[in-house]
Amino acid sequence: MINLASIFPNPLVPDCIFTSPLLATEPSSETAPMVLAGVLLSLIFIYLASKLGGELSKLVDLPPVLGELVAGVVVGVSALHLLVFPEAGAVAGDSVVITILQFVGLNPESTEEVFALSSEVVSVLAEIGVIILLFEIGLESDIRELQKVGVRAAIVAIVGVVAPFVAGTVGLVLIFGMPTIPAVFAGAALTATSIGITSKVLSELGQLKSTEGQIIVGAAVIDDVLGIIVLAVVASLAKTGEVDIVNLVYLILSATAFLVGSIFLGKFFNKSFVAIAEKLQTRGNLVIPALIFAFSMAFLANAIHLEAILGAFAAGLVLDETDKRKELDQQVIPIADILVPIFFVSVGARVDLSVLNPSSAANRQGLIIAAFLIVVAIIGKLITGWAIVGQEKINRLAIGIGMIPRGEVGLVFAGIGAASGVLDKPLQAAIIIMVILTTFIAPPLLRFAFKGEEQLVEQPELS
Amino acid sequence: MINLASIFPNPLVPDCIFTSPLLATEPSSETAPMVLAGVLLSLIFIYLASKLGGELSKLVDLPPVLGELVAGVVVGVSALHLLVFPEAGAVAGDSVVITILQFVGLNPESTEEVFALSSEVVSVLAEIGVIILLFEIGLESDIRELQKVGVRAAIVAIVGVVAPFVAGTVGLVLIFGMPTIPAVFAGAALTATSIGITSKVLSELGQLKSTEGQIIVGAAVIDDVLGIIVLAVVASLAKTGEVDIVNLVYLILSATAFLVGSIFLGKFFNKSFVAIAEKLQTRGNLVIPALIFAFSMAFLANAIHLEAILGAFAAGLVLDETDKRKELDQQVIPIADILVPIFFVSVGARVDLSVLNPSSAANRQGLIIAAFLIVVAIIGKLITGWAIVGQEKINRLAIGIGMIPRGEVGLVFAGIGAASGVLDKPLQAAIIIMVILTTFIAPPLLRFAFKGEEQLVEQPELS
Repeated sequence: MINLASIFPNPLVPDCIFTSPLLATEPSSETAPMVLAGVLLSLIFIYLASKLGGELSKLVDLPPVLGELVAGVVVGVSALHLLVFPEAGAVAGDSVVITILQFVGLNPESTEEVFALSSEVVSVLAEIGVIILLFEIGLESDIRELQKVGVRAAIVAIVGVVAPFVAGTVGLVLIFGMPTIPAVFAGAALTATSIGITSKVLSELGQLKSTEGQIIVGAAVIDDVLGIIVLAVVASLAKTGEVDIVNLVYLILSATAFLVGSIFLGKFFNKSFVAIAEKLQTRGNLVIPALIFAFSMAFLANAIHLEAILGAFAAGLVLDETDKRKELDQQVIPIADILVPIFFVSVGARVDLSVLNPSSAANRQGLIIAAFLIVVAIIGKLITGWAIVGQEKINRLAIGIGMIPRGEVGLVFAGIGAASGVLDKPLQAAIIIMVILTTFIAPPLLRFAFKGEEQLVEQPELS
Repeated sequence: MINLASIFPNPLVPDCIFTSPLLATEPSSETAPMVLAGVLLSLIFIYLASKLGGELSKLVDLPPVLGELVAGVVVGVSALHLLVFPEAGAVAGDSVVITILQFVGLNPESTEEVFALSSEVVSVLAEIGVIILLFEIGLESDIRELQKVGVRAAIVAIVGVVAPFVAGTVGLVLIFGMPTIPAVFAGAALTATSIGITSKVLSELGQLKSTEGQIIVGAAVIDDVLGIIVLAVVASLAKTGEVDIVNLVYLILSATAFLVGSIFLGKFFNKSFVAIAEKLQTRGNLVIPALIFAFSMAFLANAIHLEAILGAFAAGLVLDETDKRKELDQQVIPIADILVPIFFVSVGARVDLSVLNPSSAANRQGLIIAAFLIVVAIIGKLITGWAIVGQEKINRLAIGIGMIPRGEVGLVFAGIGAASGVLDKPLQAAIIIMVILTTFIAPPLLRFAFKGEEQLVEQPELS
């Protein structure tokens, strides 16, 4: 086998002013072409997994996103190791991608660097994927409909945060005899719904624009903000034993200002956006200004310590109000199609099923606590549908189920709790199992709850 | 200002099994959200630059891609420092993006890491951008038309490699009294046309499918392969003083096998591709299989030491033959719209105009040699149009001009030559200036050459 290093003996000297990303065999740094090769291979595996999983899921009449998550588990750290990430403790030797790269000339000394860099690129692509997903969800949501359901969404969100938090904390103290601080931490981990998974399933079921769908999305957004606030409170409680009031007030004010502000600003920005897009005459005249806006809002939300995805969702809501919505929607579809699966497959790939192995004592204890947390997590959200008083004709079950998947914020709680020493290993494992289970059961349950009234969404017709 | 680190005190423990890319404020590693923020900011700057540059260029009746390149220079290392890359020797302190991130809470100790990681992500996105560009060019090219022009394209490619190589080498030895090895190196740097820039301009002028356009694209592909072979020969000559025959034979055989093989394989794969795409029922049923194919071909080309873009071009050519071409084309447009500008703006951003500053003695000497190289570079390619014998009705000037831009391969020569000590600073600077100039003059000249016969391509109608 011919080694690339024998053709290109040395890296570019640092004073070479211009290094090109074009030539994949370019020696600007010996690792650069290998990082690209690693990213390409990872994307090939991700796309294969997403299509296989999505299609199989569809065949057995389940939401495709569930198949993508499961396929992610199959290609990830739990099984095939085609897609592993260093943050979870994996090293280059664990990665099949790196093993393949070694066959095509990757230098053994560079494996860790190439693994770290290509994994980082895939991670950022996944994050951009979920930003695009929430932008698309925003585009498909109707700001007027959201305002109409605003009060009901707020009720669902607040009940869905308070109920599992109180039930979880009290239960852990009374039933399991846990000290207060870890119980509060685990209770807090039960609060925040995963907006990404829920909204994707709603979209797949054609229910995003239904009253129930808009209540769920609205509640998930509010509940995401509440989750960030709860996280800040609990984290400062765990760290100093008291609540940092200044920080708390700051978070509440900035979150409110951001959401309300972006909607008001949006009303003015609407027309300028259309005017700009109509003046532009080069390719991407619509999609590039839209992405500049979405990424700016995502950056802004991130900068004030909210989530980037909230900014992208707000940007989508604003642009939904323009005359260009339909055209933009059509152009965002293929972009979402290639980026969003990276997110879902990565989420699956990071799930380590070894916490379910009962041969470890900590796992066994964790499984028992997990069973309790799962019951609280499901019931605590299920009841939210019945918290909406008055309205007769509303699918309360669907709303409750829509709020079940926990996803990311719960895992952040687990991580912070473990790092600050508040959570012991069984409790940490229990939280993780709860997150995995609620994430995976919600899609099929939601499909079941909407059975009969569903508007089957077939292939978007682009041709 | 509230620091994120005060809310999230610690990174996740390594045994936390599941870290999520969703929450941008996630503490999985303190740097992760900042890398995302850095990439978002970089993309915002890139998109703003590409639209401003492209539109201004269009206004003064020049090809938009020229404006994107110039805008890249403006935002890059030569001027605003909004987009700088560490390979060129920049540090975090040079980057405006990093400065902005420090305002929103980036820890001073993490600046270099965040700078390196976010730059790497942008570089890989640019590389994926040019892969998508060549895939799109392949989709827009016609394999039958390419086969029809094959002999003429080969003549253009061979003359366009031999003429500047011989003239450059002999001229440097005779006029400048240079030793043979550096002269051969500089001569070799004059050989390879930049297929990316030329094909983009042709596409913008609506000339991609004209006979001239197909000759240029075909010749650029062949000439790219020749360039890689010349590079291997010259690099081994510079390193060991002799030519590595085994490696040379391997490269020639693998390049031929790859190009011929992918076309033959394509004839079979065509039908399976359409059959697969028609069976799939979930979103992205067409674009995801297409990208799996394109990325696999790019990876394969990369693995056998060709360029990734050649694989992507071959993939596009193969899929151009299917019934799904039009539908696929439409879906690839928005994807290309958001990825391709990253490539062109990055190319501009990496250009350091300080090599043009005549106050340094090496630059002055470099400028004189550069003037010679530029003349050889332009004339050596211009004559290729007239190398095609027989045909009367052909725009020979346009073909010659189409081959002028050198771009990346020339810079790789400069880099390897400098690293191996063969090229001194003036000669290295001269090669870089030659590349910059040929890259920037070709788009307006090509537009001029096609004046009159141009089919103005307005906005692609997607609505």
